[in-house]
Amino acid sequence: MSVKDALRGQRIETPSWAYANSGTRFKVFAQPGVPRTPYEKIDDAAVVHRLTGVAPTVALHIPWDRTDDYGKLAEYARDRGVALGAINSNVFQDDDYKLGSVCHPDPAVRRKAIGHLLECVDIMDQTGSRDLKLWFADGLNYPGQDDLRARQDRLAEALRETCDRLGDDQRMLLEYKLFEPAFYATDVPDWGTAYAHCLELGEKAQVVIDTGHHAPGTNIEFIVSFLLRAGKLGAFDFNSRFYADDDLMVGSADPFQLFRIMHEIVLADALDPAAGIAFMLDQCHNIEPKIPAIIRSVLNVQEATAKALLVDREALAAAQRAGDVLAANGALMDAYNTDVRPLLRELREEMGLDPDPMTAYRRSGYAERIVRERVGGEAAGWGA
Amino acid sequence: MSVKDALRGQRIETPSWAYANSGTRFKVFAQPGVPRTPYEKIDDAAVVHRLTGVAPTVALHIPWDRTDDYGKLAEYARDRGVALGAINSNVFQDDDYKLGSVCHPDPAVRRKAIGHLLECVDIMDQTGSRDLKLWFADGLNYPGQDDLRARQDRLAEALRETCDRLGDDQRMLLEYKLFEPAFYATDVPDWGTAYAHCLELGEKAQVVIDTGHHAPGTNIEFIVSFLLRAGKLGAFDFNSRFYADDDLMVGSADPFQLFRIMHEIVLADALDPAAGIAFMLDQCHNIEPKIPAIIRSVLNVQEATAKALLVDREALAAAQRAGDVLAANGALMDAYNTDVRPLLRELREEMGLDPDPMTAYRRSGYAERIVRERVGGEAAGWGA
Amino acid sequence: MSVKDALRGQRIETPSWAYANSGTRFKVFAQPGVPRTPYEKIDDAAVVHRLTGVAPTVALHIPWDRTDDYGKLAEYARDRGVALGAINSNVFQDDDYKLGSVCHPDPAVRRKAIGHLLECVDIMDQTGSRDLKLWFADGLNYPGQDDLRARQDRLAEALRETCDRLGDDQRMLLEYKLFEPAFYATDVPDWGTAYAHCLELGEKAQVVIDTGHHAPGTNIEFIVSFLLRAGKLGAFDFNSRFYADDDLMVGSADPFQLFRIMHEIVLADALDPAAGIAFMLDQCHNIEPKIPAIIRSVLNVQEATAKALLVDREALAAAQRAGDVLAANGALMDAYNTDVRPLLRELREEMGLDPDPMTAYRRSGYAERIVRERVGGEAAGWGA
Amino acid sequence: MSVKDALRGQRIETPSWAYANSGTRFKVFAQPGVPRTPYEKIDDAAVVHRLTGVAPTVALHIPWDRTDDYGKLAEYARDRGVALGAINSNVFQDDDYKLGSVCHPDPAVRRKAIGHLLECVDIMDQTGSRDLKLWFADGLNYPGQDDLRARQDRLAEALRETCDRLGDDQRMLLEYKLFEPAFYATDVPDWGTAYAHCLELGEKAQVVIDTGHHAPGTNIEFIVSFLLRAGKLGAFDFNSRFYADDDLMVGSADPFQLFRIMHEIVLADALDPAAGIAFMLDQCHNIEPKIPAIIRSVLNVQEATAKALLVDREALAAAQRAGDVLAANGALMDAYNTDVRPLLRELREEMGLDPDPMTAYRRSGYAERIVRERVGGEAAGWGA
Repeated sequence: MSVKDALRGQRIETPSWAYANSGTRFKVFAQPGVPRTPYEKIDDAAVVHRLTGVAPTVALHIPWDRTDDYGKLAEYARDRGVALGAINSNVFQDDDYKLGSVCHPDPAVRRKAIGHLLECVDIMDQTGSRDLKLWFADGLNYPGQDDLRARQDRLAEALRETCDRLGDDQRMLLEYKLFEPAFYATDVPDWGTAYAHCLELGEKAQVVIDTGHHAPGTNIEFIVSFLLRAGKLGAFDFNSRFYADDDLMVGSADPFQLFRIMHEIVLADALDPAAGIAFMLDQCHNIEPKIPAIIRSVLNVQEATAKALLVDREALAAAQRAGDVLAANGALMDAYNTDVRPLLRELREEMGLDPDPMTAYRRSGYAERIVRERVGGEAAGWGA
Repeated sequence: MSVKDALRGQRIETPSWAYANSGTRFKVFAQPGVPRTPYEKIDDAAVVHRLTGVAPTVALHIPWDRTDDYGKLAEYARDRGVALGAINSNVFQDDDYKLGSVCHPDPAVRRKAIGHLLECVDIMDQTGSRDLKLWFADGLNYPGQDDLRARQDRLAEALRETCDRLGDDQRMLLEYKLFEPAFYATDVPDWGTAYAHCLELGEKAQVVIDTGHHAPGTNIEFIVSFLLRAGKLGAFDFNSRFYADDDLMVGSADPFQLFRIMHEIVLADALDPAAGIAFMLDQCHNIEPKIPAIIRSVLNVQEATAKALLVDREALAAAQRAGDVLAANGALMDAYNTDVRPLLRELREEMGLDPDPMTAYRRSGYAERIVRERVGGEAAGWGA
Repeated sequence: MSVKDALRGQRIETPSWAYANSGTRFKVFAQPGVPRTPYEKIDDAAVVHRLTGVAPTVALHIPWDRTDDYGKLAEYARDRGVALGAINSNVFQDDDYKLGSVCHPDPAVRRKAIGHLLECVDIMDQTGSRDLKLWFADGLNYPGQDDLRARQDRLAEALRETCDRLGDDQRMLLEYKLFEPAFYATDVPDWGTAYAHCLELGEKAQVVIDTGHHAPGTNIEFIVSFLLRAGKLGAFDFNSRFYADDDLMVGSADPFQLFRIMHEIVLADALDPAAGIAFMLDQCHNIEPKIPAIIRSVLNVQEATAKALLVDREALAAAQRAGDVLAANGALMDAYNTDVRPLLRELREEMGLDPDPMTAYRRSGYAERIVRERVGGEAAGWGA
Repeated sequence: MSVKDALRGQRIETPSWAYANSGTRFKVFAQPGVPRTPYEKIDDAAVVHRLTGVAPTVALHIPWDRTDDYGKLAEYARDRGVALGAINSNVFQDDDYKLGSVCHPDPAVRRKAIGHLLECVDIMDQTGSRDLKLWFADGLNYPGQDDLRARQDRLAEALRETCDRLGDDQRMLLEYKLFEPAFYATDVPDWGTAYAHCLELGEKAQVVIDTGHHAPGTNIEFIVSFLLRAGKLGAFDFNSRFYADDDLMVGSADPFQLFRIMHEIVLADALDPAAGIAFMLDQCHNIEPKIPAIIRSVLNVQEATAKALLVDREALAAAQRAGDVLAANGALMDAYNTDVRPLLRELREEMGLDPDPMTAYRRSGYAERIVRERVGGEAAGWGA
């Protein structure tokens, strides 16, 4: 397949909550024009897809996107040229979850949390979503606060019950995170934990890599490669970070890392949607306007992908076989150092798009329009 | 001075905001009975002092503790056996501060921020506070977002104007922080930056060490020792962390580190309040009840201090001089491994206090009373 | 079982190479009196056991401890009251291994490396060792240098062949390490990778946790707990670190962490040698004298264990069930804050040992004797 | 000045020791053809300069490059088209320095160390070097091992005496490093410490930034910017790292970071040699051939510099002033995403050089020649 064909077929899912207000524990700086309903979030996502051509689905977050009629929401999306994507569960914002959800010492709280997960599968049935994304804020702030091992047992039980509820074409994606909001121990802190549970659960359970959820120094592309080899990589939550889970625009902190990740994907022929890896954004645009930030993020992923597709795989493999360290590294860097923006502009023109989505958005007047029109009501808030 | 005398003279300041609700960006779990006014915060702080005997002052945070009559508040505190301590400024929660406060590119925003700092000095005049604590959330999320150097110029200007406003017996304490809420660059990211500015500003400017504000692996006691040697250590914001600025109870994550910090203090004879180092807590009790968590924190500092006071300084110095690595380390560890709780119980009894403040608090019924009485109104919220 | 009985039955294995010279890449500071042969290393290890009573085995490292007749060496050890322990393979110091050993792109190098591993099993047959410890320095310094996934395939093959060679009572212990000597990617970087391979290999393959081999912020006791639950924890390589793989005396950098690790062991009733967890030291005494440093390390493990055994498990579990964060943390801290040195002194006296092994060693004159006697020949060197 | 003129005037100093064998504590993999004398190191450095046109000086390391007649060595260099650069002192490889050099508790050791520093200035007088580079391995492995504050006093004394010895046109460059070879505390661990001492010492003392010597997450370009503003940045030791002080080829781990650093340099008009910043490499080519690795490193710095020079400073400043986060970040990224290799090829042709130094080196036969000719004698080893 040609580089352009591969790029044309790429799919990047945007998250409904990235269009809404977000912030840090210190302050949420509200932005004018942010959506007030799931419908308005879909409007914004549709703009991103219209301009980039590669973002045709939008992930929902329950309860933030709760609505009476998910079928109607799906139809609304379809009418705007996009589709509903993964369903993200939320078991961390109810007062009952102060000490955990599916790992909570109290069985009643666990039951409530599992109930929410099952409800999310119900919603998937209505939206036609394939993927249930599970992120648990569960963990401990203090040593001794709870029994680490008992919590794993509780986690395993909840995952099993949820997995059993999934339909034949549905999957669960288990996310891991080193820390935050728990500050001593997290119940799914690393890929090893997520992998072990998914292995136990069987084929429907896959690991999600959120690029911001690792300890300093972690080699993320190694994890990508390992999970691909094991057939257990289900999805990415893309974003970028300098320190913790900063949730900045993907590719903005370390574009070379993003390229290395996409290189592993390309090496494993896993870019094609048929390979079953969901490429999703999960970001917080706290100080920059949301829609152009998301467009910029989509472009960053595209650029990293284009570079990865340009790697001369034969030259690379030959140098690797020969143990020629500098030539092998050089083969990779040659692709990384290439300016792929002209190629992507060309591709967009072939796809009938504006070659420069950022400028096109600015010119479109959409930003001004939503500020003007979205007055009153309550701006949507978030999570991360 | 005897160990007990030193411990009897120790002073630990508690922060008004630690008595109020706090949380992460994901969720603030409200607790019943938290204060609704600065007056109620002082009530709680007075309980902590009454039980521990070493927490006679409470820091205020403006605007969270804004009130019409600071003199009245100070008198209220005095009546309850405590005094008002440091004034903490806040230039990060107004919408204008989205891109910074004193480092903002817009001079009007900088002017507003400086205005707040000067207002804080006005308040100090009324409360009789010696210390103005300055923490700036200023920073950048993205490379290129602003000019790093120009921001230092702006920072220097604001600090100068504020410093010039201070009275003869007043000081400014400049805090540094590696990251959060800014995720790419922080304008005062490390002790070096704070030190350089304080040096420029002169004697009234001193550095604050918040124990949670460092990069992984940073040796905090080295910084303590260095600033003590340079005469530039003004205060501590105590808390503890495993990952980022977790704001857990001091001594709960790494009690040995806290001991090493207090060891440097004792070595420099800087424990005595006359030495001018303010020992303050700055914590968030997100999931545990606030008052007993603060009592526990005070006890943790006391225990670390007691151990530091027990170090056999002559044996230590002799081993150091002899280059006897194991004996020198052993001299330090002997003190650390000592159980100082009996000594502290004894001390409390001598001071007319209950030997076990945690149990005494539980028995006091205060927790139940505030839940019962503090109904209606709006529970105080926070910062970190 | 009583606390003392548990402590009496504890077993800590010391590593032959810790008695030999070691250093950093900058300099190896040779110490007088270090062993020149495996026999002299055993002499030193026997001294440690004689004084502590809980270090009855010594691990060997091949080729550093290569000898003509391992049966004779084992007998020599027995005569001195100790036994030979785990066999540690070394496939990182031959010039052929510049780009890796079992993961090397060249099959001839891989064959050579596997040959060494099999030779180690031969040696185990002669020494009667149960455990083969595998640490691979394999990895990459530069992105693109080799194919991450192909290297996993090669690793799996080598592990399989080695595992198949093991006798019925033998095990292989797979160690992971984040980085060093490889600086971009390590082929077994984390517990997840080691676990996945061990799971594939079956019951004879178990994971080793080296306490110095993690990314900053990693919660090691979580990994301990997880592997215990999965039945896949085979051993510890104890040491301590502030930054990277510092290989300092265990318990010297973060004694609270060591306590938390031992707490998980005690909770899982895995302290008893019958549980199959090998507790080994793996340290480098670069600047302090080796034998007393090892004694001190053994004592540090003992003290952490004693504290862990003192945890009031019922009170802890009750507080955890009740969601009482402060009480649960307090139950753990009560044990940690206890001074267990009197208990251990008492235990040693009951065991017919000197209550203070450090002083006893100093008094013994052994240090002076080896300096006097071990003249000429070549002092043993190492690895880590 | 045009971009090309700026690039033409750029100067990058290569370190003599990077041409010699190096390794980790686990193994030094010797390479055939490495230099055996300072003269042969100069031969290799001259090749790098001949091919790149921007590496006209070579730093020496004493005692590794000790020779009878430094004047002769300087002349030898001149004859080959290069000059001798900074003199690097070494007070970490003598047995006396086990517990430190200028910070050692024993005054006799300190005297010896200072003697070496003064000897280095003598050598500078002979080589005509402007810069004395000071890196101290001094530090502690264990808490309590020595008195942190007393060590600062000793350090200050040694620096003062050395500084006083410098001639009018000479400088001292003080390097800092977080850890290694000391693992608990380093006596000059961070830029703040180096800065404070340099400030005290006066104009002749400047800070060196080694890009591999920071805690995880440290924003290096902030430090660059801060020291430039303070007039205290003297030099860079370039290399790159993923974890610790990995000493990989500069630009190989995080090329975006290197670009951001050079962006600060360009912003401050500090690229020109007249600005007094020495741009030096300090790397270890443990597994890749040395000369082409150094050429590649020089090219990496050049490419980062070219991109930094291409930043549209007006557009950037305008977006910054307007608080347009995305546009400001975009202005920076536009330059970074440009492929500057064609420009650099063109520049080289204009300079009469081969447009592709890597290929030119390969074609030159130099690698084969040194392997053939440098037989016998002892290959030069190192430090880092």
